[in-house]
Amino acid sequence: MDRLADVSNLRSSQSQTQISHLALDIGGSLIKLVYFCRYDDSCRDDGDELRSQNDSLCSKSDNSQPVLEGRLHFAKFETSKINDCLDFLHSMKLCLDGSHDGTAPPSNKIFIKATGGGAYKFADLFKEKLGVSLDKEDEMECLVTGANFLLKAVHQEAFTYLDGQKEFVQIDPNDLYPYLLVNIGSGVSMIKVDGDGKFERVSGTSLGGGTFWGLGRLLTKCKNFDELLELSHRGNNRIVDMLVGDIYGGTDYAKIGLSSTTIASSFGKAISDSKELEDYEPEDVSRSLLRMISNNIGQISYLNALRFGLKRIFFAGFFIRGHAYTMDTISVAVNFWSKGEAKAMFLRHEGFLGALGAFMSYEKQCLDGLTVHKMQQKFPISASSAGDNIYCSLNSNSDENGSIECTVYGT
Amino acid sequence: MDRLADVSNLRSSQSQTQISHLALDIGGSLIKLVYFCRYDDSCRDDGDELRSQNDSLCSKSDNSQPVLEGRLHFAKFETSKINDCLDFLHSMKLCLDGSHDGTAPPSNKIFIKATGGGAYKFADLFKEKLGVSLDKEDEMECLVTGANFLLKAVHQEAFTYLDGQKEFVQIDPNDLYPYLLVNIGSGVSMIKVDGDGKFERVSGTSLGGGTFWGLGRLLTKCKNFDELLELSHRGNNRIVDMLVGDIYGGTDYAKIGLSSTTIASSFGKAISDSKELEDYEPEDVSRSLLRMISNNIGQISYLNALRFGLKRIFFAGFFIRGHAYTMDTISVAVNFWSKGEAKAMFLRHEGFLGALGAFMSYEKQCLDGLTVHKMQQKFPISASSAGDNIYCSLNSNSDENGSIECTVYGT
Repeated sequence: MDRLADVSNLRSSQSQTQISHLALDIGGSLIKLVYFCRYDDSCRDDGDELRSQNDSLCSKSDNSQPVLEGRLHFAKFETSKINDCLDFLHSMKLCLDGSHDGTAPPSNKIFIKATGGGAYKFADLFKEKLGVSLDKEDEMECLVTGANFLLKAVHQEAFTYLDGQKEFVQIDPNDLYPYLLVNIGSGVSMIKVDGDGKFERVSGTSLGGGTFWGLGRLLTKCKNFDELLELSHRGNNRIVDMLVGDIYGGTDYAKIGLSSTTIASSFGKAISDSKELEDYEPEDVSRSLLRMISNNIGQISYLNALRFGLKRIFFAGFFIRGHAYTMDTISVAVNFWSKGEAKAMFLRHEGFLGALGAFMSYEKQCLDGLTVHKMQQKFPISASSAGDNIYCSLNSNSDENGSIECTVYGT
Repeated sequence: MDRLADVSNLRSSQSQTQISHLALDIGGSLIKLVYFCRYDDSCRDDGDELRSQNDSLCSKSDNSQPVLEGRLHFAKFETSKINDCLDFLHSMKLCLDGSHDGTAPPSNKIFIKATGGGAYKFADLFKEKLGVSLDKEDEMECLVTGANFLLKAVHQEAFTYLDGQKEFVQIDPNDLYPYLLVNIGSGVSMIKVDGDGKFERVSGTSLGGGTFWGLGRLLTKCKNFDELLELSHRGNNRIVDMLVGDIYGGTDYAKIGLSSTTIASSFGKAISDSKELEDYEPEDVSRSLLRMISNNIGQISYLNALRFGLKRIFFAGFFIRGHAYTMDTISVAVNFWSKGEAKAMFLRHEGFLGALGAFMSYEKQCLDGLTVHKMQQKFPISASSAGDNIYCSLNSNSDENGSIECTVYGT
């Protein structure tokens, strides 16, 4: 998604609705935003608006009627262009500073929920530029909270992808745990999730989205991640990778189950003296790189799932971007290494788990005395559930990242 | 090691001794040779010399006296320069063709033991150029045979490497199995070894030596593998890699045990718009690449060792080349992921397992009726063992690859 297009969309949507709640996930490469826009709402001139909104989110109603109705929206910026993000937030006003010129003095009372390493790294910058404090939430906890929310509350969130076929998976919220959550950002975290708030980061790898984009930039001169991903569509990794057949003279190494087309060595053909970097097509390099990293993540994920006896692996994070070939390679890797016993699953809101989890933590604050476990169970999967706090359904007219219709009920 | 220097050394040694037995391991990047030079021996003008020598290797002596004494030598060529290898073999005559001009007609009776994919791919070339047939041995079997031989028969073969300290490991041949053998060639094979001839290739990864060299060539314009490895000595991967501290503003992510210096994303800093490939020092790129690949291999190896309850992991293959930083990174990875429970070990003759295994198969042919298991047990670890067929001790004056003094006894 083009960043400028993002902002322009956001600005046009702002004319109809106002952002009342916002959470950030500031990673090594990308800043992810989740924000709530109420229907028929306008920004009040109240310096404590964010807190007020929090209060209203927590207000009690006697008859479980909705007290807030609106949509959750999703956006992203490159971390290296954090000023664009700050400008956007400033222009949105966020109902934070009570004025329209943003010159009001900062108030200690204004907080935005934030997670990811950037919540620490850029805390001073947010204070200085927007006058808001970042209320830091643990990154892994947010990822898990976000994943649990999506898997339980949002219809048609999880799906498998094999041979070009996307198939939605019906998740029974009573039979969700345990599972392995693999979040592929700049790096990769692998988290064993045993329940709401019950999790352990069991593994990870430094070969992630940052590796694909970093190496890809150096090798292809592409200008952005999506362009590099797009290139891979048209590439042929066999030009760059050394296959079993290249070593065995075109034949399989059947005895150990390696076909002639199995990649023996990623970038192994590039050892040839006869070709320099400029002699390779960027498309082929991109495809090889994507396959190397996707396959490696799939393999390490499977080995960790096996280690803990986890049958289900959910892949998320902004590396994937709904990209067919990425998902296919991960799926094939999990299928290959598990001999068909484990299945890779993907999430529609893959890139926003951390930001969603941070967003959910507003909710947690309102519910002192309730455990996280209890809090999470309040997110239902159907509108008919009684006594639920937030009902969400995926809007079929959602944009690329799928904004979610969201109603806050009184408890 | 410089290839030309290799050949020149070999030629000077030829003036004193003659190659009588030879085995090849022809991989995707390198051809590895193991050959036996007898002391006080000269090449006989006998077209069936290789077979004759085989026969003499198998000849019985009544009093277990040595029937052959000499040294096992090791050499390598790049697979892409296979003609250099053929020239070398041609010039050595190998006691194969019975003439000194190499023009004698090919004989079907002349075989050289060979393994690796190239034994299939280049079979016709060897037949055409040297008039010899390659007697193909299974690659995994040769690796295991070679490893078992080295671990049982050669003193001070295995060692650990941590914090710059090399420490030889005393291997009890009665307590060797099971272990994980990780052979890092162009690609990586991981083999669970349960005994002589008892093994299974349980895993592998396409991120191996070919990836380091292939990506390294494209990124640094280095002219050979060893130059690239040498560069990494002087590099600083933190220029290229995104560390936890880069994301967290210099602090650790202590809650999940990630220090600020942990690599979050290999090549993750290269996503920056402000620097192109030519702005990075090749040293830093090489170091980052080496660390990425070594760490990944260490991690996947450990996960497989864990899966099968294997306490010992031996790393071999020509990727390592006794390179301190490579071994250190692999050791740290195994130590990190196993929380100190597993240890990485390395082999002095790391690159020649397959070729040694192919060499040993000459022996196997002489011992029809004996199982591989029994054959292997005849390799002792000390000179005092009775009834042993081959006694080997590492010569303290060995060259880089450590030629092995070798005495063949009658059985």
